[in-house]
Amino acid sequence: MQIVKVQTPSAQYQIFAGTGLIDTLEARMTRILAALGRKLPKRLFILTSPEIWDLWSKRILSSFTNTPTILLLPAGERHKNLRSVEKLLREMAKAGGDRSSILIAFGGGIVGDVGGFVASSFMRGIDFFQVPSTFLSQVDSSVGGKVGVNLPEGKNLVGAFHHPLAVFADMELLNTLPDRELRAGLFESVKAGMIRDRALLRFMEENSARILGRDTASLEKVIAASIRMKADVVSKDERENGLRMILNLGHTLGHAIESVTGYRKLLHGEAVGWGIIAALHLGRKRRTISEAQFDRLMGLVYLYGPLPALKLNPQRLVDASAKDKKHRGDVRRFILPVGIGDATVVEDVTTDELLEAARYMLALAKALPEQVEVKVLAAHG
Amino acid sequence: MQIVKVQTPSAQYQIFAGTGLIDTLEARMTRILAALGRKLPKRLFILTSPEIWDLWSKRILSSFTNTPTILLLPAGERHKNLRSVEKLLREMAKAGGDRSSILIAFGGGIVGDVGGFVASSFMRGIDFFQVPSTFLSQVDSSVGGKVGVNLPEGKNLVGAFHHPLAVFADMELLNTLPDRELRAGLFESVKAGMIRDRALLRFMEENSARILGRDTASLEKVIAASIRMKADVVSKDERENGLRMILNLGHTLGHAIESVTGYRKLLHGEAVGWGIIAALHLGRKRRTISEAQFDRLMGLVYLYGPLPALKLNPQRLVDASAKDKKHRGDVRRFILPVGIGDATVVEDVTTDELLEAARYMLALAKALPEQVEVKVLAAHG
Ligand SMILES: NC(=O)c1ccc[n+]([C@@H]2O[C@H](COP(=O)([O-])OP(=O)(O)OC[C@H]3O[C@@H](n4cnc5c(N)ncnc54)[C@H](O)[C@@H]3O)[C@@H](O)[C@H]2O)c1
Ligand SMILES: NC(=O)c1ccc[n+]([C@@H]2O[C@H](COP(=O)([O-])OP(=O)(O)OC[C@H]3O[C@@H](n4cnc5c(N)ncnc54)[C@H](O)[C@@H]3O)[C@@H](O)[C@H]2O)c1
Ligand SMILES: [Zn+2]
Ligand SMILES: [Zn+2]
Repeated sequence: MQIVKVQTPSAQYQIFAGTGLIDTLEARMTRILAALGRKLPKRLFILTSPEIWDLWSKRILSSFTNTPTILLLPAGERHKNLRSVEKLLREMAKAGGDRSSILIAFGGGIVGDVGGFVASSFMRGIDFFQVPSTFLSQVDSSVGGKVGVNLPEGKNLVGAFHHPLAVFADMELLNTLPDRELRAGLFESVKAGMIRDRALLRFMEENSARILGRDTASLEKVIAASIRMKADVVSKDERENGLRMILNLGHTLGHAIESVTGYRKLLHGEAVGWGIIAALHLGRKRRTISEAQFDRLMGLVYLYGPLPALKLNPQRLVDASAKDKKHRGDVRRFILPVGIGDATVVEDVTTDELLEAARYMLALAKALPEQVEVKVLAAHG
Repeated sequence: MQIVKVQTPSAQYQIFAGTGLIDTLEARMTRILAALGRKLPKRLFILTSPEIWDLWSKRILSSFTNTPTILLLPAGERHKNLRSVEKLLREMAKAGGDRSSILIAFGGGIVGDVGGFVASSFMRGIDFFQVPSTFLSQVDSSVGGKVGVNLPEGKNLVGAFHHPLAVFADMELLNTLPDRELRAGLFESVKAGMIRDRALLRFMEENSARILGRDTASLEKVIAASIRMKADVVSKDERENGLRMILNLGHTLGHAIESVTGYRKLLHGEAVGWGIIAALHLGRKRRTISEAQFDRLMGLVYLYGPLPALKLNPQRLVDASAKDKKHRGDVRRFILPVGIGDATVVEDVTTDELLEAARYMLALAKALPEQVEVKVLAAHG
């Protein structure tokens, strides 16, 4: 097991990455609360989704002497909205929840985001724990305190910053995760390596078979390193005023792809995978990475593919990216890779440059064979 | 004009109480933002209610060079819900609101509570200003950072702590306020005097005619003192873990009255007025106030009456008060007046004591003549 500390101006807590965590949840939570001079409350809520609960309820409940109240959120991005939030808040009120109640968000990023927002707003804020059950939620969405839901006008437009008391990322949960979800989530770790962690990047190059084969020790390494990278960035810039923006490598065009395809065709991590390819191309053009580095990093992306093929109009992608809320006013901001294991935020990317990067990426995406053969460079330049 | 500073662990800002504020809003906001190294954003939203806007839009808009986008919330507690929040958030997204947008909540406590919650959750939190337009919102709801909405299961069950960048309480706005709203709001100032401010209490005893006649200088005194009292308490206990509870003097039974009457019969301040009477009775019984002090404080309550007559079953009131979220577990907490200008929180009030206080209060409330003649004691014991 590895423990990562998060320390921001508004919160301080630990993220546990390992196995066997889900068998000892109650004891662990009790210990964490005790350190804060508190006790496990009478009313404990678990928010989860029906299919996850079917798979894991026995294991999870076995650790509780005090049976929690189960709240269910149907799977799918279309349920990540204020209607669901209202429904859940009402269920909690009806079940006698009070200001001392605690919520456990057990599921993927959707359950975590909705559960975190419900916890942030129920009686003006109650405490919660995250038990992320997808690769993406373990390395990304459960770290950093961003919680919230979508509006018809756009994704994640409503929310709060609300940190959990702790996060328990148990690798065993990933055993039931569909392969495609695992691969997609891994692109966030690819991103993590590219922007801040050479060692993670190298480990992912050298151990892709073990990682994709769900070898627990290998997964723990990748997950803990990814969490550490994000926790470190978030600890330095909680509210995304500066540094935190580098976490958006691959996301400018990634979000645009998701938005143009109505969030139906690709998983988030897959869209980010394509977005990373566009960013690598732009980095090569701007010479923040060399051609050799470009090849090496493209090789890494391909290792965790295949990415789904895409047929889109590049201009539409560029237009959609201008609506991204990460842009302030008219400045076109973009995250570029810098060498191996570093990244930078530039504010002056022109529409033409972006269009060219989108064209490059879409040419690959259109022509994509089912599996791409990749030569991983032996010399790590 | 008087300026009250609020300083909590999470925020630091000023509350302005005076006249002419609404003619200079843009300039004042610009100055406050400049001190934070920021500029007035392109997109400024004003949330208000149609009838308030009809009365005051010309005056308010005259101060803006950059015309704000107007968002309307119909008046009434039944619109203080998540449905309204969603509608407003969507309007803001459609109008191009972004993370730098600022919202101005211009209206009574409902507009302030809803607007504050919308601001706290739009894109995970944007800044806002409060321009409270009722007596109650000037002295109470705009101070302290509590924002939120109701669920069918209970009042204010959803919300956040989100402080404004500043509050502008302009006494002139009260000129169009119905008399009943003014009187009701004044019970929060009566409460403020009772729990922490002898001088305010005396001023309200000696100047009731001027205050009720809306003499601007007198109103400014009462409002600024009430704000100062609450700001002081909130600065010491932002999240209501201790001291902040004394603000609930008169509210245990006040809330119960509102809940039992479905929030339709009495205004909040009126229910609090009755609740204060019950608290005075309990204080007399427990000897935290003398009989002479009881008489004097009852005199003060009557000065700002008449309170509407009430016919209720005391047991129902006591039952309803047990559901108040201010109670933790089974402990029955109650705020008692202590002498003149002080209060204390006790945790051991029995159901019988509460029932007796409710009976005393309801006997008065049932028999109430339209106007009660009151002799204000000359000697301030
Ligand atoms: N808050 C943040 O900082 C942040 C960061 C990134 C992404 N997100 C959000 O996260 C969401 C995506 O999260 P996600 O990728 O985890 O998707 P998800 O929550 O939709 O989960 C993916 C699917 O896997 C299922 N599932 C979950 N755990 C499982 C398990 N152990 N076994 C089998 N099936 C399981 C789910 O029911 C779902 O069908 C998006 O809404 C995105 O906006 C948030
Ligand atoms: N956040 C807090 O800390 C806090 C504290 C106390 C009360 N509250 C909340 O405040 C709300 C009550 O606030 P309120 O008493 O201001 O009620 P309100 O907002 O309903 O306003 C009362 C009425 O006066 C009208 N009005 C407002 N300003 C006017 C003006 N200048 N001229 C003429 N009419 C005007 C309104 O349209 C409304 O019809 C409740 O929802 C309560 O829960 C919140
Ligand atoms: Zn992502
Ligand atoms: Zn009140």
